[in-house]
Amino acid sequence: MPTRINLNADMGESFGKFVIGDDAAMLRVVQSASIACGFHGGDPTVMATAVAEAKAHGVSVGAHPGFNDLWGFGRRQIRMNARDLEYMVAYQIGALQAMAGLHDVPVTHVKAHGALNNMAAEDAAYADAIARGTRAVNPDLIFVAVALSELVRAGERAGLRVAVEGFADRTYTDAGMLTPRSEPDAMITDPARACDQVMRMATEQAIITKSGKVIPTPIHTLCHHGDEPTAVAVAQATRKALADTGAFEFVTLPELMA
Amino acid sequence: MPTRINLNADMGESFGKFVIGDDAAMLRVVQSASIACGFHGGDPTVMATAVAEAKAHGVSVGAHPGFNDLWGFGRRQIRMNARDLEYMVAYQIGALQAMAGLHDVPVTHVKAHGALNNMAAEDAAYADAIARGTRAVNPDLIFVAVALSELVRAGERAGLRVAVEGFADRTYTDAGMLTPRSEPDAMITDPARACDQVMRMATEQAIITKSGKVIPTPIHTLCHHGDEPTAVAVAQATRKALADTGAFEFVTLPELMA
Amino acid sequence: MPTRINLNADMGESFGKFVIGDDAAMLRVVQSASIACGFHGGDPTVMATAVAEAKAHGVSVGAHPGFNDLWGFGRRQIRMNARDLEYMVAYQIGALQAMAGLHDVPVTHVKAHGALNNMAAEDAAYADAIARGTRAVNPDLIFVAVALSELVRAGERAGLRVAVEGFADRTYTDAGMLTPRSEPDAMITDPARACDQVMRMATEQAIITKSGKVIPTPIHTLCHHGDEPTAVAVAQATRKALADTGAFEFVTLPELMA
Amino acid sequence: MPTRINLNADMGESFGKFVIGDDAAMLRVVQSASIACGFHGGDPTVMATAVAEAKAHGVSVGAHPGFNDLWGFGRRQIRMNARDLEYMVAYQIGALQAMAGLHDVPVTHVKAHGALNNMAAEDAAYADAIARGTRAVNPDLIFVAVALSELVRAGERAGLRVAVEGFADRTYTDAGMLTPRSEPDAMITDPARACDQVMRMATEQAIITKSGKVIPTPIHTLCHHGDEPTAVAVAQATRKALADTGAFEFVTLPELMA
Repeated sequence: MPTRINLNADMGESFGKFVIGDDAAMLRVVQSASIACGFHGGDPTVMATAVAEAKAHGVSVGAHPGFNDLWGFGRRQIRMNARDLEYMVAYQIGALQAMAGLHDVPVTHVKAHGALNNMAAEDAAYADAIARGTRAVNPDLIFVAVALSELVRAGERAGLRVAVEGFADRTYTDAGMLTPRSEPDAMITDPARACDQVMRMATEQAIITKSGKVIPTPIHTLCHHGDEPTAVAVAQATRKALADTGAFEFVTLPELMA
Repeated sequence: MPTRINLNADMGESFGKFVIGDDAAMLRVVQSASIACGFHGGDPTVMATAVAEAKAHGVSVGAHPGFNDLWGFGRRQIRMNARDLEYMVAYQIGALQAMAGLHDVPVTHVKAHGALNNMAAEDAAYADAIARGTRAVNPDLIFVAVALSELVRAGERAGLRVAVEGFADRTYTDAGMLTPRSEPDAMITDPARACDQVMRMATEQAIITKSGKVIPTPIHTLCHHGDEPTAVAVAQATRKALADTGAFEFVTLPELMA
Repeated sequence: MPTRINLNADMGESFGKFVIGDDAAMLRVVQSASIACGFHGGDPTVMATAVAEAKAHGVSVGAHPGFNDLWGFGRRQIRMNARDLEYMVAYQIGALQAMAGLHDVPVTHVKAHGALNNMAAEDAAYADAIARGTRAVNPDLIFVAVALSELVRAGERAGLRVAVEGFADRTYTDAGMLTPRSEPDAMITDPARACDQVMRMATEQAIITKSGKVIPTPIHTLCHHGDEPTAVAVAQATRKALADTGAFEFVTLPELMA
Repeated sequence: MPTRINLNADMGESFGKFVIGDDAAMLRVVQSASIACGFHGGDPTVMATAVAEAKAHGVSVGAHPGFNDLWGFGRRQIRMNARDLEYMVAYQIGALQAMAGLHDVPVTHVKAHGALNNMAAEDAAYADAIARGTRAVNPDLIFVAVALSELVRAGERAGLRVAVEGFADRTYTDAGMLTPRSEPDAMITDPARACDQVMRMATEQAIITKSGKVIPTPIHTLCHHGDEPTAVAVAQATRKALADTGAFEFVTLPELMA
């Protein structure tokens, strides 16, 4: 009997005439989409369109809240107080709920974006604020959390279902953390290497660090960034690699966490 | 038996450290608050706070969507296509729903802000887009519409309950429209004059124009702008004038339109 | 002896990670670049980079001020008062002057962007505000004005040197105005048709309307939009068509207007 | 013969209808104004107005660049790369130069705002980026630097004239740094205490820490924040205290640093 696994990608990050990513291609690869909510990318029309397209592909929809920073695409660290952060997250989830509701699609997960996600991975106060903002909007939301990070613990503290995430296209430090994007080897752009990482994460249920260390953790979902030039090729390759084994069944996050 | 009437005001229009209006004072006067949703004013924390304070005063809460224009405080006309407008409205309602949900408060009405409201009052395409965006989020939302305007008709076309609004602190042209703010006599800042206008609107169920013309229309709710220096004094005076007659009962919008 | 002519394009309209246009390709075609100034597109780094690249190609640099509207890419009409508009234009020119100064490049022209340009073409108050904001920063700036429009007259009223502009990739109504982008035949994406239009504008010194009407006007500079998918092909084709005649010499705007 | 000293305040931080500070009152107290440049506050019209009012009071004008963060009023720390930071500062100085030029007023100093200033006080890379952006626009600009901070050293490395600043209304840690605003005793709101601190800083040419430690440093200019409710009273009191000694002459920054 195959192991159930989820592939996810960030989508709907374009803003007006400013286009980022190839959502149409990614929707043929993943089962769950994390949709930008207007703060680091995404505008109401982009969001509504992304939801409609996800629905058409049977892809489940989640909110992808980020810092209010279009210039930095949500990838600049911003220090803010926990109350503003909690409310900022709730605001963005609510906005997406309305856009999803236009197409009768439920928002079923939340995953923080960019620098917000990275800061929360290491900072319990940030992680708790995101988890509180999520639970306050809807305690049934699935909380997607970077493996081995403060986000896992914050989601559990908040009583949320936590979907632990491994990255197909990012490398890991020996501490089990994502290599910061400011470092040259942060991204994996070679499809073969991404496939190898994904296969090991999924089968060994562990994070494999750059130096080869294996750190056990559940891995529910595998993330592919949508905004890299190599994103689609990497995502297609990793999906094929997993599928070719016959050992995995691809399911949406609500199916996986039911 | 007294006539039921509603007083409403715009609130939650501050943005971070930038403070506008005296929400605390207005909450002691009105029964319904239209809360800015982050585009022309309002930030997540301001919104959450405004909801909590409204709840504490038994004041019902509505969304007050505006153009994405902090610099112009939503008072500059922006030409946008109907689809973007519909989604922009839905986005803002959804965002407020999340903030209101944090305090277990339902969002019960929608009222467009500033230039968006003014453009929609005269432009059926704008009015329909706002009504569609409102209904799509929740068909039970009460649609607050400028008396005699395209918004009334758009709300009816969309099958929404329409609460017709008269302004305590604005003058009317002989066409029954609000005098544009660019004209010197647009605002009524004299409490006595505002009281006279409010009393006549409420008792005669009509708009009284600058030249004295009387145009019959239902008047469900009376608006007081919260951001004028004279706002609180005008609002307190008009409420007292109505109360002193003993002829009116002040109720929230959901009570009035039930 | 060849006729001197200028080709110009809008550049530097990307914003952080959001990329628009192929500036590198356009810089090999044009002699003058109108660089976005941060309001409808462009950020400080994008602006500085665009100036450096223009300098490297011997392309002269101008400011391309637009409405403060990233979502609408400056293509939504915004109604603002003349004073704010004048200062908004001056602000953007000053910002570009600083970025250009980093590379010892002078800002030599000003050309309004998008909806601001379109509104000013028909509205003398808008056109005068842009001309006043330009002259106030530097009376030696060349004022690029849509042919036959209020901008031409406003530039002259302000005592600025006016470079009259024809569009390679836009059609004209019989009034000699640009067909609004909201209409299906606004853009010319067929290189052959663009070449024909450009050749006739340059040789006949006239605007040729969709119906074939010929309206005489000086044509100093020919604009190619940088953000259309077909932009580079159209620009390359029109330059080649003009060059192949041997009748034209391509010069920068300051050379042309000296 | 009296000692020459400068009082400065931040101004022009309002944004459209959102008003912050009492610029008119502060202009009667200080000799130099640091004017917001549109990123954390300030819009083109506010900036132009602030310059005109400063000129009318004989107050010299400087640029007050901040993070692009209206919500946080530039008081949230943002991590950005040095190149973007350098260009962001240059952009804002250029924008103010244009607005000041409208009134034939030179921009004579630069002082970073809020979290940008605080981060740069401790982070040499930030301080150097600000100094580079300043020098690139105009090497004659006076660089206002928090006493004892990295900004002093960065200004000197860049070959700029450095005006060392003490704060009238902020307390100092024993390291000689500003107490972070997140701590309860960061601000001095009692005029008497502010007077005492100012008098000692000016006469002893030193920073006096909360615990009473005295750290020698030149003190050229004394800052009063314009956005606190107590700002005007504190500023008036400190000016009077200094004036009453007869030992000080109040001069603008360009006069002081000539």
